[in-house]
Amino acid sequence: MRVYDLILKKRSGGELTGEEINFLVKGYTGGTIPDYQMAALAMAIFFRGMTDRETLDLTLAMAQSGDTISLRDIPGAKVDKHSTGGVGDKTTLVLVPLVAAAGVPVAKMSGRSLGHTGGTLDKLESIPGFRTSLSIAEMIRAVQQVGLAVAGQTANLVPADKKLYALRDVTATVDSLPLIAASIMSKKIAAGADAIVLDVKTGDGAFMKKLEDSFALAEAMVKIGSGAGRETVAVITNMDQPLGRAVGNALEVQEAIEALQGKGPADLEELCLCLGAWMLRLAGKAPGLQEGREKLKRLLESGAALEKFRELIISQHGDGAVIDNPALLPQAAAVLPVRAEAGGCVHRLKAEAIGRAALALGAGRERKEDAIDPAVGVAICKKVGDRVAPGDELARLHLNCAPGDPPAQQARRLVMEAYEIKPEPAVEPPLIFGYVDRSGRHYLD
Amino acid sequence: MRVYDLILKKRSGGELTGEEINFLVKGYTGGTIPDYQMAALAMAIFFRGMTDRETLDLTLAMAQSGDTISLRDIPGAKVDKHSTGGVGDKTTLVLVPLVAAAGVPVAKMSGRSLGHTGGTLDKLESIPGFRTSLSIAEMIRAVQQVGLAVAGQTANLVPADKKLYALRDVTATVDSLPLIAASIMSKKIAAGADAIVLDVKTGDGAFMKKLEDSFALAEAMVKIGSGAGRETVAVITNMDQPLGRAVGNALEVQEAIEALQGKGPADLEELCLCLGAWMLRLAGKAPGLQEGREKLKRLLESGAALEKFRELIISQHGDGAVIDNPALLPQAAAVLPVRAEAGGCVHRLKAEAIGRAALALGAGRERKEDAIDPAVGVAICKKVGDRVAPGDELARLHLNCAPGDPPAQQARRLVMEAYEIKPEPAVEPPLIFGYVDRSGRHYLD
Repeated sequence: MRVYDLILKKRSGGELTGEEINFLVKGYTGGTIPDYQMAALAMAIFFRGMTDRETLDLTLAMAQSGDTISLRDIPGAKVDKHSTGGVGDKTTLVLVPLVAAAGVPVAKMSGRSLGHTGGTLDKLESIPGFRTSLSIAEMIRAVQQVGLAVAGQTANLVPADKKLYALRDVTATVDSLPLIAASIMSKKIAAGADAIVLDVKTGDGAFMKKLEDSFALAEAMVKIGSGAGRETVAVITNMDQPLGRAVGNALEVQEAIEALQGKGPADLEELCLCLGAWMLRLAGKAPGLQEGREKLKRLLESGAALEKFRELIISQHGDGAVIDNPALLPQAAAVLPVRAEAGGCVHRLKAEAIGRAALALGAGRERKEDAIDPAVGVAICKKVGDRVAPGDELARLHLNCAPGDPPAQQARRLVMEAYEIKPEPAVEPPLIFGYVDRSGRHYLD
Repeated sequence: MRVYDLILKKRSGGELTGEEINFLVKGYTGGTIPDYQMAALAMAIFFRGMTDRETLDLTLAMAQSGDTISLRDIPGAKVDKHSTGGVGDKTTLVLVPLVAAAGVPVAKMSGRSLGHTGGTLDKLESIPGFRTSLSIAEMIRAVQQVGLAVAGQTANLVPADKKLYALRDVTATVDSLPLIAASIMSKKIAAGADAIVLDVKTGDGAFMKKLEDSFALAEAMVKIGSGAGRETVAVITNMDQPLGRAVGNALEVQEAIEALQGKGPADLEELCLCLGAWMLRLAGKAPGLQEGREKLKRLLESGAALEKFRELIISQHGDGAVIDNPALLPQAAAVLPVRAEAGGCVHRLKAEAIGRAALALGAGRERKEDAIDPAVGVAICKKVGDRVAPGDELARLHLNCAPGDPPAQQARRLVMEAYEIKPEPAVEPPLIFGYVDRSGRHYLD
């Protein structure tokens, strides 16, 4: 088998066999296939696409390129959750304790912030002492003991994806649907859960800006999950404006605590109940979505979900006292209000600009090697549909620099640009657009 | 300027500026742009193509990537000639002495055999003593003294093409029309001639199998030449069957000598007169093609062209006595006839199979580093349109191995496969399909 022939086959619109895909993934991961051939192949895939069968074979070959995790020592059905990434998306912080409180064991592998999107590991690490670098054995032991764990990806999980993603990132071949789907799903499959709930974000702050593209990605991932024998559901959710009101690591942990007390922003709670109900259903812990939802609601009200979060923090060496006293979280040196210049109603609040404002303040990282500041970020006061009077606070910048310094000025400018305020009233946008399961697409209206 | 953005631009169907193309060619040649980014870009170019302006800019940037040759110390208009490669194509051996005899100085850079196609340098080197590795200064001095020289490409002529071609060769991005055109024309432009005559082969033994593709390539190259201020004409010629009757290095030199004596195969003479008439016209040595043609015909008849070939050989340290005594050329140990099994008329004589037969015998090279045997090859007895009786010789294999050895058997099989013999009569195929000049395409019928 020659790589050249396989590139030519794909370039000409042919379908690669499973054997051919295995040869490519093994050779590339093992270093016998050079970057330049894989780059040409990735570009050919960008133009020609992949069939469902090819995408599944690619995902499985990638999933098997390194360690795979077995969760069989944890009793019960394990359900994983993944978000395609957004701004202010602290869902995992709320959802994992919530479903764990409902009896669904969760061994969650999460990622870090990059660009304008946040990362669960960075958020959790803003809790003093919290450790996310667990070995597989430590993670499984934690789930056995307290029912949940959140850890970083181990070094040798899906090395094929690490290498291929780094290559795609510098060759303008990231935004190929089958390659995106295979990248995400290979990690979920290697991580060992029995079922997977995907939160596919759509809109300004999401990777997929268009609803149709988000449904297509959801569909591709659900097909892969089903093909790999993992029941998979994808919910398509709004990321046109940030989720909740806090954007920044410690700020988001604080908002997650409020949500676990039943006092969080409505959109965040609603999304957690929706995704959580799916997780309960796939885990066999609720007969239907409505029953699951009600069960989760009671766990928020009773404080059981919040206690589960405390258990998670303590289990991973963090200071559980932050639950009762969020002031123990890192605090920024100053808070700078951003005020409306004119009155009206908020028609848009562009998520990406808010994400970039938080990034400018130091809450995120432009490159993987950058350090982040856990205390800084943007607290949003007005969201889409809200009325605003001139001089009202639109948002507050949590700063660790002087208000006149370039990062603060840049963040302020980005927040101002994020708001589109018009005289006429605006309606609150939908939060959930639909879902995709094995039977296909389901649009909500 | 970031390479990533330029790949993305081309991938999305955008047009690269001259500045962007210069940046890419300089960076790639200089080693600051890695192979994997150039491979992704080449694949994006394969799918998106390039505008005429982009192709010209790419060609000029490549031509300027290394040394460029100035021929201003040679008086008169210098005309270069290039063939896209074929089987039995010894045109250069005849044409260069012929037009030099007509007073057109020719400083010709040629290539080597690769795969099933032959190379002028290998053919000339079958003449005892002939040296093709001349420095630029030696080449110019030779043209000043005897009016012609044929040499290999110097080490640093168009390094961008060397590097890019090697990459395209392993990433399935060779057959992109703008990249092919830029590769050929960058070398012609760097080689310094004032005008260029291109012989674009079409058919089974050619790089371009389809007439339409050959015209398209011709058009792209003529546009580049004109854009670079070098008057360029491309003649589209038949390479469905081999040119002439000899395929193999010394065999082709012998046939070229016969052609220069006015006793060569009709198709070879006709092609040389056609291309030569264009060269004379572009050099201002003949008012029209017909006058040029008649002038060249007289030079064949008078022996002046043959004497010019002797001067070339002697000037480049070869044994000029081969002109009068071709037996001084390397001779194969044995000649094995391949006979027709059934009678009829030759309908096809597939050039590629004949080229592969010669390759199997050792006349060519599969890889650049392979050695060749100058004596071996295939002498064709029957061509398309010829009548054949059972047992007639179709061709003769000139061997340096035993007739039962695998190379001889393989060559024999390939020759048999090359012939398509049917009972009904066949017409001789056209030799010249048309030409392309600055005013566009001209189809002959």
